[in-house]
Amino acid sequence: MNEFELIRDYFARQPVRRADVVVGIGDDAAVLDPPAGCQLVVSTDMLVSGVHFPEGTAPAAVGYKALAVNLSDLAAMGASPAWFTLNLSLPSADSGWLEGFCAGLFGLAGPFGLQLVGGDTTRGPLTVGIQIAGFVPRGQALLRSGAQPGDSIYVTGWLGDAALGLMCLRQELRLPEAEWDRVLQRLERPVPRVHEGEMLRGLASACIDISDGLVADLGHVLEASGAGASIELAALPLSPVYQAVRDQVGWNPAVARGDDYELCFTLPAQRQSVLEAQAARFGCGLRRIGVIEAQPGLRLVEPSGSVYRPDRQGYDHFRGV
Amino acid sequence: MNEFELIRDYFARQPVRRADVVVGIGDDAAVLDPPAGCQLVVSTDMLVSGVHFPEGTAPAAVGYKALAVNLSDLAAMGASPAWFTLNLSLPSADSGWLEGFCAGLFGLAGPFGLQLVGGDTTRGPLTVGIQIAGFVPRGQALLRSGAQPGDSIYVTGWLGDAALGLMCLRQELRLPEAEWDRVLQRLERPVPRVHEGEMLRGLASACIDISDGLVADLGHVLEASGAGASIELAALPLSPVYQAVRDQVGWNPAVARGDDYELCFTLPAQRQSVLEAQAARFGCGLRRIGVIEAQPGLRLVEPSGSVYRPDRQGYDHFRGV
Repeated sequence: MNEFELIRDYFARQPVRRADVVVGIGDDAAVLDPPAGCQLVVSTDMLVSGVHFPEGTAPAAVGYKALAVNLSDLAAMGASPAWFTLNLSLPSADSGWLEGFCAGLFGLAGPFGLQLVGGDTTRGPLTVGIQIAGFVPRGQALLRSGAQPGDSIYVTGWLGDAALGLMCLRQELRLPEAEWDRVLQRLERPVPRVHEGEMLRGLASACIDISDGLVADLGHVLEASGAGASIELAALPLSPVYQAVRDQVGWNPAVARGDDYELCFTLPAQRQSVLEAQAARFGCGLRRIGVIEAQPGLRLVEPSGSVYRPDRQGYDHFRGV
Repeated sequence: MNEFELIRDYFARQPVRRADVVVGIGDDAAVLDPPAGCQLVVSTDMLVSGVHFPEGTAPAAVGYKALAVNLSDLAAMGASPAWFTLNLSLPSADSGWLEGFCAGLFGLAGPFGLQLVGGDTTRGPLTVGIQIAGFVPRGQALLRSGAQPGDSIYVTGWLGDAALGLMCLRQELRLPEAEWDRVLQRLERPVPRVHEGEMLRGLASACIDISDGLVADLGHVLEASGAGASIELAALPLSPVYQAVRDQVGWNPAVARGDDYELCFTLPAQRQSVLEAQAARFGCGLRRIGVIEAQPGLRLVEPSGSVYRPDRQGYDHFRGV
């Protein structure tokens, strides 16, 4: 099998055909028609075998997650997904691996109407780089920098289950099989909150996705906004699985670990009633966990009223280098 | 040094600040303003250490070439460069390496007005993925599919010097030091023919950049256009260095090896006088090497009139897998 047959066979069979793709895969570059009145929102993320996922991870899980983390970045901007490109470095052109990878990748791209418009494949260590593009109506992107003292802080979904999944894989935590499956699913197949991000346009004052842990990612919002915050730990949305092991694992998996891919956003008080009227449309759930304050720093307040200090701030790829 | 300091220190100090970048590096995604009346042209290419360049290659050469190969894809579409994103996997956050890499990368981005708008850095095997975006006026992208029988075939610059550079590195060829330097420069620092591509809008009927060798890349044009071609080997533009070793190395470096990053394009007869009037603006030179024909296949005609068969078609990353 040569490189070109490989590209044609696996990546040209994608499910989505968008009208705004004038030229897709197969020329030197793609030619695309951005819609009038919109801004382009662009992000990129890379997964490396042995760093972002264990060697031997199912190829479908790799394909799914590589795209999910990029979709999550668009979600955090309130953008609607449109196109993506793929850089894939592979030790060998293994057709079984490629079948699985494409199943995971296109299985997620399809429902979001996302079309693969270009890419590059090469022999090398297993590395997946995806670049994604979407749109927002002009001026409506959700930035990190808009939080104001008095704004409420919300998160979608549940926090910390992905971290519990990783603890299970590392044998730092034992769970019954059904619970193990559930948290591993949250680690390997996070659902990007794209529709939730779109609904937050015109509502949220700031937004970010939680990839490195609540403390680290909310910290980026606070830094960009020049503000501080208090979080009520008792208000954190924890799954039944997490609640059952809370005494054993503490707060760290929910506040200081990565891979949740939930949205954390801030909301001015005067828009609270608008959000509450829409809350039922957030199928993943929505929880107010704290408030933006003028005083710098992030305070995590225990139910007892004392301030909790997490063991670390989040994931850092080059710590200690 | 942590990952975020690394990004801030090295990649936030880029030379270009475009007015159409609303939000650049530092949020979950970039927010960009595509110009009205234009189509977006997007491409991506990846370089892997030990595959696309030898381990130990100077970091400036890696940074330069990673961007140059992407710019060359835009050039082949006739697009004007605007933005790029970077996925960088590095064994360690080595500041000396990063200094050199950024010097090569931004040294090329600057003159082309190209702004880095996002990226991802991680620990892992040395891999550089770049995704690039530019513009063409609506409907003016140069595709592979427009060549018609009777069109002339042109190439820019000189062919085969990059292949001679690789032969020198592999000790398959010996050259005096000044010539060695010149061909190695063509291998490591190809000049993307961006301005030449822009000038070809509205003129060329088809265009491609020569990354895998003339035979392979012109082959893509013929396949996409449903046509054949004849090339006069005596008409190939060869540098003085190549001409001096032509008897020793034959035609293969000029027709069946990669990395030239010159443009190969086709031109209808009625536009030949327009191109000739502009030829002086092609500083790299411009040479008519053959003609598109209805008969399928690519014929390389020796000065004697016999047909030459190259030893291979071009570079294939998964040959024999």
